Amino acid sequence: MDRVYNFNAGPSALPLEVLQEAQAEFLNYKGTGMSIIEMSHRSPEYAAMHAETKALLRELMGVPEDYEILFIQGGGSLQFLMTADNFLNGKAAYVNTGVWAKKAMAEAKRFGEAYEAASSADKNHSYIPTDLQIQPGTAYLHLTSNNTIYGTEWQDFPEVDVPIICDMSSDILSRPVDVTKFSLIYAGAQKNLGPAGVVIVIVKKAFLETARQDLPPMLSYQNYAANDSLYNTPPVFAIYMVNKTLHWIKRQGGVAAIAAHNKEKAQLIYDVIDASCGFYRGHAEPASRSLMNITFNLPTAELEKDFIAEGKKRGFVGIGGHRLVGGCRVSAYNAVTVEACRALADFMKEYQNKHA
Amino acid sequence: MDRVYNFNAGPSALPLEVLQEAQAEFLNYKGTGMSIIEMSHRSPEYAAMHAETKALLRELMGVPEDYEILFIQGGGSLQFLMTADNFLNGKAAYVNTGVWAKKAMAEAKRFGEAYEAASSADKNHSYIPTDLQIQPGTAYLHLTSNNTIYGTEWQDFPEVDVPIICDMSSDILSRPVDVTKFSLIYAGAQKNLGPAGVVIVIVKKAFLETARQDLPPMLSYQNYAANDSLYNTPPVFAIYMVNKTLHWIKRQGGVAAIAAHNKEKAQLIYDVIDASCGFYRGHAEPASRSLMNITFNLPTAELEKDFIAEGKKRGFVGIGGHRLVGGCRVSAYNAVTVEACRALADFMKEYQNKHA
Repeated sequence: MDRVYNFNAGPSALPLEVLQEAQAEFLNYKGTGMSIIEMSHRSPEYAAMHAETKALLRELMGVPEDYEILFIQGGGSLQFLMTADNFLNGKAAYVNTGVWAKKAMAEAKRFGEAYEAASSADKNHSYIPTDLQIQPGTAYLHLTSNNTIYGTEWQDFPEVDVPIICDMSSDILSRPVDVTKFSLIYAGAQKNLGPAGVVIVIVKKAFLETARQDLPPMLSYQNYAANDSLYNTPPVFAIYMVNKTLHWIKRQGGVAAIAAHNKEKAQLIYDVIDASCGFYRGHAEPASRSLMNITFNLPTAELEKDFIAEGKKRGFVGIGGHRLVGGCRVSAYNAVTVEACRALADFMKEYQNKHA
Repeated sequence: MDRVYNFNAGPSALPLEVLQEAQAEFLNYKGTGMSIIEMSHRSPEYAAMHAETKALLRELMGVPEDYEILFIQGGGSLQFLMTADNFLNGKAAYVNTGVWAKKAMAEAKRFGEAYEAASSADKNHSYIPTDLQIQPGTAYLHLTSNNTIYGTEWQDFPEVDVPIICDMSSDILSRPVDVTKFSLIYAGAQKNLGPAGVVIVIVKKAFLETARQDLPPMLSYQNYAANDSLYNTPPVFAIYMVNKTLHWIKRQGGVAAIAAHNKEKAQLIYDVIDASCGFYRGHAEPASRSLMNITFNLPTAELEKDFIAEGKKRGFVGIGGHRLVGGCRVSAYNAVTVEACRALADFMKEYQNKHA
């Protein structure tokens, strides 16, 4: 079977083993005589998988017992709304690191004051700002840990006196993170965790108690927590694929081992960029470089178009940049192999030699 | 491979062919070298599947061009909220046919007056009320076309002068329906359409124009329509499985042919109930009987427990009743075969002969 080198920005590559396991038991989950997607979410088999998924996430990320783990539909975009609707009491601080951060802030403005604690807009979000201005009476600080469009990523999270809410959609489980620094973490599954259709929310119980009480059940974190994310039918298949992906991460040696792989993978590409004498120009400033999304330009738009087309012929998929930055973007999420990155690095060098 | 007779109430049985097709191409969708869940929702391959799914639904249900078809996450429960949030201007009428109708009405009360146009609460929702009281100034009438817990189903929809919003989660595509009678239809996929994780919304464009304008994007039907349900990453896998299920319905001969099968299937079970001299007692009044969910009791709770356990040994899964009605419930959604229903009917007769 011909599988391509998949560098899609999301939805994106999943571990081949995970896909193969899901495929093998697709008609008969653990001897039940049914597909996992044909069974009741109140069945003991589903319940066991649901609980195991939370336990694996707790183990792999080191989530303390005083945090809840929730599964919610609607993607990061619904989280932009829910975080503010649940927790914006008065005003909240947002770090504007690009499109997704701005979308989160736009939703927050419906519920109170949402101000920019810092911004990288002055340089088309090519860096992570470090000087944050937190105003008194701030309910929370919202961060976007990794910015897929620009290829920037927080290297160290800021030390502040207010609760931190963090959108980790595009780098969750890619590196060790101290969960206790955050009051709420959310992450759409479709980069590092599984298919589109479920968001993981990790929320500190003490913070959860401060949430608004009068919300509709489908927008209330407290309701999800009170019902173990089973107030209504959960997105079974997406959670199931997250479960398999977490098992895979564990088999790789856990998050620390995954992080080492990710570093090696990104370095292969960044090394080509840095040694290219300006043929490849990285968008992100080196100190803010993402290990997940590597963004760069070629000397001309024509060369970029040709590079992407030529790459596609060689089996490299998803390397076109986002329209806001242009150029190229290589997404090297957890499931992308070192081999894929090495093959791409070799292609980049070859391409440069031919066209420089 | 041992597949059971799956009578789950939802998530529920899917057509074996659909599962087999999805399994076969799970690692490589149409020669792309990727799984459908690994590819960008902006890719031409995804876009083609997305458009085809809408076209198939339009064709099979006879959805006119002046209706939009949307894909939304969050299940029917989020629709309870969204329908009212978008359209409840003043007051709205709800027909209380049980738990799900009541949940929809509870959400509506956040946005205005929601009153009962009729109710079947007096007889534990064993029938569909026909005498509706619609007050002047009513924004819409909300119906639940099929009531899974009680096994009741609207046979003919009421003729009223106000827009009708209908929750068809548990009987969509099970029988021909005149879409033009409705201003908005919504249906969670996990009964007749696919796995949990996506809701189909069919909404009349003229009605959509009357929706509130100031809603958050993730709660605004207008936003979904303006972006062809691609404002953010859609639940790709769920939509893909809906696509395959729609193809399967078409291969069966379309909705009319499916409806004939469904009638035959339900009749097999109802005939056993009606000929059982009271050993099996149907919960729903005959004139309101659902073709999707057949609810009944045995003479004692002990016999019910034994019947369900004995059934499970014979490979009949999911025949326990909902706790609000008790007894047994057989869900015979589109994908449940005539053979499965015949086997269950035979078992019911055999069980009665042994225990009556």
